[in-house]
Amino acid sequence: MSQPRPVVRLRPKAEARAIRHGFPWVYADELVVDRRTKTMAPGTIATLEDADRRPLATVTVNPNSKIIARVMSRDAEVEIDRAWIAQKLTRALEMRARLFEAPFYRLIHAEADGLPGVIIDRFGDAAVIQPNAAWSEMMIEDLEAALAEVTGVSTIIKNGSGRARTLEGLAEETVVLRGSLDTPVEVPMNGAIYMADLLGGQKTGLFYDQRPNHAFAARLANDARVLDVFSHVGGFALAALAGGAQSAISVDASAPALDLAARGAQAMGAGGHFSTRQGDAFDQLDALGQEGARFDLVICDPPAFAPAKPALQAGLRAYERIARMAAPLVEEGGYLVLCSCSHAADLAQFRAACTRGIGKAGRSAQLIHTGYAGADHPMLPQLAESGYLKSLFFRLD
Amino acid sequence: MSQPRPVVRLRPKAEARAIRHGFPWVYADELVVDRRTKTMAPGTIATLEDADRRPLATVTVNPNSKIIARVMSRDAEVEIDRAWIAQKLTRALEMRARLFEAPFYRLIHAEADGLPGVIIDRFGDAAVIQPNAAWSEMMIEDLEAALAEVTGVSTIIKNGSGRARTLEGLAEETVVLRGSLDTPVEVPMNGAIYMADLLGGQKTGLFYDQRPNHAFAARLANDARVLDVFSHVGGFALAALAGGAQSAISVDASAPALDLAARGAQAMGAGGHFSTRQGDAFDQLDALGQEGARFDLVICDPPAFAPAKPALQAGLRAYERIARMAAPLVEEGGYLVLCSCSHAADLAQFRAACTRGIGKAGRSAQLIHTGYAGADHPMLPQLAESGYLKSLFFRLD
Repeated sequence: MSQPRPVVRLRPKAEARAIRHGFPWVYADELVVDRRTKTMAPGTIATLEDADRRPLATVTVNPNSKIIARVMSRDAEVEIDRAWIAQKLTRALEMRARLFEAPFYRLIHAEADGLPGVIIDRFGDAAVIQPNAAWSEMMIEDLEAALAEVTGVSTIIKNGSGRARTLEGLAEETVVLRGSLDTPVEVPMNGAIYMADLLGGQKTGLFYDQRPNHAFAARLANDARVLDVFSHVGGFALAALAGGAQSAISVDASAPALDLAARGAQAMGAGGHFSTRQGDAFDQLDALGQEGARFDLVICDPPAFAPAKPALQAGLRAYERIARMAAPLVEEGGYLVLCSCSHAADLAQFRAACTRGIGKAGRSAQLIHTGYAGADHPMLPQLAESGYLKSLFFRLD
Repeated sequence: MSQPRPVVRLRPKAEARAIRHGFPWVYADELVVDRRTKTMAPGTIATLEDADRRPLATVTVNPNSKIIARVMSRDAEVEIDRAWIAQKLTRALEMRARLFEAPFYRLIHAEADGLPGVIIDRFGDAAVIQPNAAWSEMMIEDLEAALAEVTGVSTIIKNGSGRARTLEGLAEETVVLRGSLDTPVEVPMNGAIYMADLLGGQKTGLFYDQRPNHAFAARLANDARVLDVFSHVGGFALAALAGGAQSAISVDASAPALDLAARGAQAMGAGGHFSTRQGDAFDQLDALGQEGARFDLVICDPPAFAPAKPALQAGLRAYERIARMAAPLVEEGGYLVLCSCSHAADLAQFRAACTRGIGKAGRSAQLIHTGYAGADHPMLPQLAESGYLKSLFFRLD
């Protein structure tokens, strides 16, 4: 390196062992935050030392963040440059290329893929970077260049929206960094075709995380009447149509999302089997109940009702309510899929809430499958408790 | 019914609510065990009442078992006969027929499929019944007849081995009840062919529960060098060969199991890519380590090291040891699959033990997938904590 790198140091009582064992974060109260550290530019690459001044790791420092340092490498001397980024991308690509037939997947899932705070989703010839940690905003040109070099994508978008950036003190902005884009992009997945509006942000983007759960639902869908509540751009509904569903209804509050879902169904040649109901999901569940509607497969994939601890109890009640309202819509012997993307509600709590709701609807159930996010959303084993996505597949009597 | 059915009653303090909410068991200390109850023939069908003499459910009573009563139906008046059994089988078959292309699956998974204590595995035209609760031993003729009628299988075997029967006070015996059998049976699964010796008992039978995890491993196996430790009849190894593995080695202590694995590989036309190492798994892992062997995919699917609470700590140490010995055999960027079928070790404990072992081997890991038993092993949501089978898919640096 051309000049000596800044150094940050753990407090005497802070646990260096966690870092040595692969924990990727240092919280602000674990670090000696002197004036020099406090004035570091967000994203600065530094050497982390333990309290006895032994080098522990190469980190990126953001004095504005509660996670004040993120481990870039357990090699305390490694240079963080374009080549280093390219190496991480290559390693991530290797796994996805092995697992997926077509280049549509999450390519980088932050810490677990070795690029702290960075999300990269690939859509064939295009990719969307979410640089949610300050270092990646600083090095966005290197990220962009390395991404183009390793994957060969011609279009690269920076999506700078979302809560994670706010916590890092980063501004919101979504721009095309390279190439150009006719949105929506057609995304083939599980035999279905989804329409993803990569410039419209979260409301109309595409989430890859439910892929294996979509696939499992599709196996239950042959000849079935399907209801997909909180359907977004048709996640479960279009997979069910690909699995041979007789009919599928997408329910969502967002008209643009439902429009993209309908365009996906059209592109699949399944437009005649697909319909939508726009509105609040609870209202729609209520209305369908009043109508005496019955389905062979009902899926509810709501937004996070319990994103963090303070919302846990209210969130669990909301999940119970969803289960209680959805269960009566399921035909005897039919299937009910209930999903949670809440960090705060663990599997046992979420499952208990669902089971209570189903019981209050007077139905009994078998649990036939529990699914998580797909393999393109790897986790560090040290952070695996945070496996946020859970999908429970019930069969109802 | 021709004559009034015996009645058993919950103790005043026992919780009737659990039964009303679908809990399937009554423990001996929750029931009024008078002389009449104590002398009931194991398997007697009775009406369960709450302490206020309100009928709760139809149960089967076994005064020899800690689980003194098992709920057959929440309908307190239902008649338990051949037609009732046939109805449960039909319902179970419907789900399996939807999910599986060929008739090779667990057809009845005890309580969760409505037949308490009964396991039925189907192998095409043959089926194996494990009547592990006394009522099913008493009604074995009805079970056999209903099974033949609903599924059309021509060969039915009763497998009366295993710990569950001992707890119920039932004798060990394995007999062909109907038809005849040339073993081993060829079982197609995930593109592989397994040889199952249905008369040889557990040592050389076949477990369907790992099917989805075999399938996931197969997706990682293309062109890979694969090591399958505790391979039994070739579970992961043959699936990996079907997934395009360059080579697969099965390690197991049982020579007959390895022989069946080799015959499976032959039947697949993959005999030239398959080899075996017979012996203690720890010894073999040690030897492979000494040899400096490296693989792209290593799977360890040991027997339950922590079947019950008292064995938990020793069991977790054994899982850690497996991980520590297996990790060095994995090529950089390769995959390590660690499985547990221990009831007592929950997912978080098992994952932590594996993570420690990998760390002690000096390797770091991503967790890319967590899998459970297949959908032909449903659970009652009320008993879902007992989801015993867990498979963790790590990628190692």
